Amino acid sequence: MDSAVNLAEKLGLLDRPYSPGVVGYLNDYKLVVVKVLGEFVWHSHADTDDFFLVLSGRLTIQLRDRDVELGPGELFVVPRGVEHCPKADEETHVLLIEPRGTVNTGDAGGELTAPEVEI
Amino acid sequence: MDSAVNLAEKLGLLDRPYSPGVVGYLNDYKLVVVKVLGEFVWHSHADTDDFFLVLSGRLTIQLRDRDVELGPGELFVVPRGVEHCPKADEETHVLLIEPRGTVNTGDAGGELTAPEVEI
Repeated sequence: MDSAVNLAEKLGLLDRPYSPGVVGYLNDYKLVVVKVLGEFVWHSHADTDDFFLVLSGRLTIQLRDRDVELGPGELFVVPRGVEHCPKADEETHVLLIEPRGTVNTGDAGGELTAPEVEI
Repeated sequence: MDSAVNLAEKLGLLDRPYSPGVVGYLNDYKLVVVKVLGEFVWHSHADTDDFFLVLSGRLTIQLRDRDVELGPGELFVVPRGVEHCPKADEETHVLLIEPRGTVNTGDAGGELTAPEVEI
């Protein structure tokens, strides 16, 4: 990544929801874009916080005790160890930042688990 | 930070350019918003990359061999050790992500050095 990264262009390369693409790195963190539509899977990350910034659309981050609602230009960091389940009723575009090697489905695993693919 | 962070609202709390505000944390990284207007100072960070995401306006990240131009929704990561000098001809709003304790002016110091203030 030796030039500007246009996040909307990168999102245009993704052909389906919950198929994340790595667009760059910040030290040992990966910068990831993803389309969200429908409900993801309840999971947590024991070793890291989880950064969400909504670029377009509306994201609900379900926590066990409440929902956090995010629109464009709004961010939330899920603390490490906290169970959460993202969902969106319309296609929503999100920037995620996590340590390299963080599995998208955390401790849950399952069919939505996605590899780290650079786009 | 136990609720959504609206970046535009947080930027509205800043009363001048180059007066950064910490809006949250991701593990040992700080999430910072800043208004950019005019030229900053040439500097580098020996120990960390430097993340810039433009939220509004236009940012030029001057490098010694070229300029990187960023508009809204565009990001760039300055590699550790690389001299850079941000500038903007119009008021520009930026999200920065750096390890806690990173000094905004890096190795340069000077009057634009700002404390880590939570907003």
